[in-house]
Amino acid sequence: MRKLNIAIIGLGNIGSYLFNYLNENKKILTEKNNCLPVVKYVSAKNKGRKRKIKINKDQWLNNYLDATKKNDVDLIIELIGGAEGPAKKLVFNALKNKKHVVTANKALIAKYGDQLSKIAEKNKVNLEFEASVCGGVPIIRSLKEGLIANKISKIYGIFNGTSNYILSSMDKENKSFEEVLSNAKILGYAESNPSSDLNGSDVSSKLKILCSLCFNSYLNENIYVEGINDIDKTDIDNANKLGYKIKLLGFAELINNKIYQRVHPTLIKKNSYVAGIDGVLNAVIIDGKPVGQSIIQGEGAGPAPTTSALISDISSILRGNVKFPFSLSSKERKNLIFQNIKERFFSAYLRFEVADKPGVLSNITNIFSKYKVSIKRLIQNPYKNKKISSIIIITHSSKDHSLKKLLKEISKKNYIKRKPKLIRIDNG
Amino acid sequence: MRKLNIAIIGLGNIGSYLFNYLNENKKILTEKNNCLPVVKYVSAKNKGRKRKIKINKDQWLNNYLDATKKNDVDLIIELIGGAEGPAKKLVFNALKNKKHVVTANKALIAKYGDQLSKIAEKNKVNLEFEASVCGGVPIIRSLKEGLIANKISKIYGIFNGTSNYILSSMDKENKSFEEVLSNAKILGYAESNPSSDLNGSDVSSKLKILCSLCFNSYLNENIYVEGINDIDKTDIDNANKLGYKIKLLGFAELINNKIYQRVHPTLIKKNSYVAGIDGVLNAVIIDGKPVGQSIIQGEGAGPAPTTSALISDISSILRGNVKFPFSLSSKERKNLIFQNIKERFFSAYLRFEVADKPGVLSNITNIFSKYKVSIKRLIQNPYKNKKISSIIIITHSSKDHSLKKLLKEISKKNYIKRKPKLIRIDNG
Repeated sequence: MRKLNIAIIGLGNIGSYLFNYLNENKKILTEKNNCLPVVKYVSAKNKGRKRKIKINKDQWLNNYLDATKKNDVDLIIELIGGAEGPAKKLVFNALKNKKHVVTANKALIAKYGDQLSKIAEKNKVNLEFEASVCGGVPIIRSLKEGLIANKISKIYGIFNGTSNYILSSMDKENKSFEEVLSNAKILGYAESNPSSDLNGSDVSSKLKILCSLCFNSYLNENIYVEGINDIDKTDIDNANKLGYKIKLLGFAELINNKIYQRVHPTLIKKNSYVAGIDGVLNAVIIDGKPVGQSIIQGEGAGPAPTTSALISDISSILRGNVKFPFSLSSKERKNLIFQNIKERFFSAYLRFEVADKPGVLSNITNIFSKYKVSIKRLIQNPYKNKKISSIIIITHSSKDHSLKKLLKEISKKNYIKRKPKLIRIDNG
Repeated sequence: MRKLNIAIIGLGNIGSYLFNYLNENKKILTEKNNCLPVVKYVSAKNKGRKRKIKINKDQWLNNYLDATKKNDVDLIIELIGGAEGPAKKLVFNALKNKKHVVTANKALIAKYGDQLSKIAEKNKVNLEFEASVCGGVPIIRSLKEGLIANKISKIYGIFNGTSNYILSSMDKENKSFEEVLSNAKILGYAESNPSSDLNGSDVSSKLKILCSLCFNSYLNENIYVEGINDIDKTDIDNANKLGYKIKLLGFAELINNKIYQRVHPTLIKKNSYVAGIDGVLNAVIIDGKPVGQSIIQGEGAGPAPTTSALISDISSILRGNVKFPFSLSSKERKNLIFQNIKERFFSAYLRFEVADKPGVLSNITNIFSKYKVSIKRLIQNPYKNKKISSIIIITHSSKDHSLKKLLKEISKKNYIKRKPKLIRIDNG
């Protein structure tokens, strides 16, 4: 029987779950993949910490980088995290020393994936990162294998469970952003520092990786990113009244041979599939030819779903399938044009809180017409006893650049009592 | 550059679409899989028929079985259909002669998959059948690779687009079964003889295949199958009033180490994910550990989605991955206990049309209590001017065997004016 020697570097919740899973499921994995997985070494920051796993003395490495030098290591599983520092050092060294690598590190792959895949290809080893995008949702394997036939025109969806939990709880439980966020921390759905979940950067890394797989392009930094920090209960209620839900969505799309990558809160129709995805779930929608529209949905985070993804990568290496990390060889990946969303057209929801005095509405509508943004719907409501009014405007499809310029101009007016809002609408 | 010589046998809509796809996408397939696919031969029933494809003279085989004998054929794609006859002959001979096989033939795989996989394993060739289940939905590859880590407890969903189109159109367009069916034929959603779509046998074949992949078991004929032929508009309306939709679902589940396979119309809660799947879409829901619940949804039939699935199989063979057709080797697949659904418990919807006279209701409720089926909800409504009443009963969870016996006993009563209905409820 063939065997594959594995080193697991990083023993947090995910590393520990994986360690136990590999020990408990050796037999079935060997049967399915014709090769025995052996956890030869482990390493983690704090050797003394209590963990729910039973490690033999001779499994511990004194220095995590030793895994890249040992002859009896075939595969290194990187579960340290972060685009720089030890994770980066480990993965670059591993691939240079002809070790297969499996990683759950989206930040590292989104930033250095192109360089890393070149080294992996040159040394004929695998670099696999299913667990880096949407946890247990087998989206990378589906793009590279199950849907390999397809010319993809658009991929989008909910790629961050924490922010989706917050938005859907604000909606369903009628609570403020702050209340819901503190609940999410108690329930373990948000980390103590949730900034990368809330500001869109977590989704951004995932989207860059998916985009490059969908369009056979190199990774690209031209991406518009906006998080959910500014969404409040009033926006959610307004959206509801207008027949929408607000979701933090990532989109990568090919329009007239140009690619747009964007992450932002989005108004989507209440009866759409994505609007119905609540809580910490992730969902990916793919428009491809010949397949049509495909949807994959599942648990996006946590040790158990992430282990499901890691094991699919490990199994692929057990079976001895050396593949291009990004579907195509580095030479054949394409240099496509990535366009700033300035040029793209959107309908939008705008919200202004204004002083309740004559001439305001006419000034606002004049500025709309100056930037050639036409208004589809306008709702003005006074706040009781406050001498301010709320103006909600839904626009027809307009250039993003015009919407932004209009917003900037109106923001400076002294009748504006609160930072105005702009949320893009997806009518897809 | 390596190359793979292919013979396509069967040139209906799907075969023709695939033929064109392979010709038009040679370059990208070669880049992604490091191997050139060459359509060396084709064969079909009627050589003279006009087709939308350009075949060279030397590509035509006089006898389709020649494909299994030629040295310059590596892979045979079987698109004839049917569990017996030429399709069976072709696939058995191909594998015996060490040719890889890709097929879209669910009936053949559901019936002879165990025998065929033994031959494929012995001869170290691939037998791939992604296209046999749910068209463009990459469910087989997901079970064998993306979700390989998981111990699956349940798989269910909508596996037949024709019947789903009929049920959802009856609901949305307020039309009768017959009207909707004739529309479906005009739109190309139903074949001229749609019996296998309507009587559940199409779903049955797909479910057997999925069940065996999920539970690592051999294929098993112990399956309960009931189609949608008896569902009428009144049932759909009743379901709506009670908060349900009616869907034709397939289920395979592991309960107390026993497997139940069943296909039947099912009442499911209106707000559930499956209830929202309308038209010809397919959807598969998988409960697994550690991943949790996963959903894959997409186009279930037609030349384009089916070609997407065929190409994923062909690509896997281009990459040179010889795998067990059913995840595990034939020796290691398990002999599990498949239980008749008699023993399983269900809540159920029952509908009786009865003579409007004294004593009927008490007789019916007596029979319910005789079989220890307890009633959760009962609605009796008279039909205007007809001297008959409709009685709808929702039961608490009861043994399927008891429900059936009760139904049989009541059916014989002379106050019964129409064949009673029993539709199982899924509260999952």
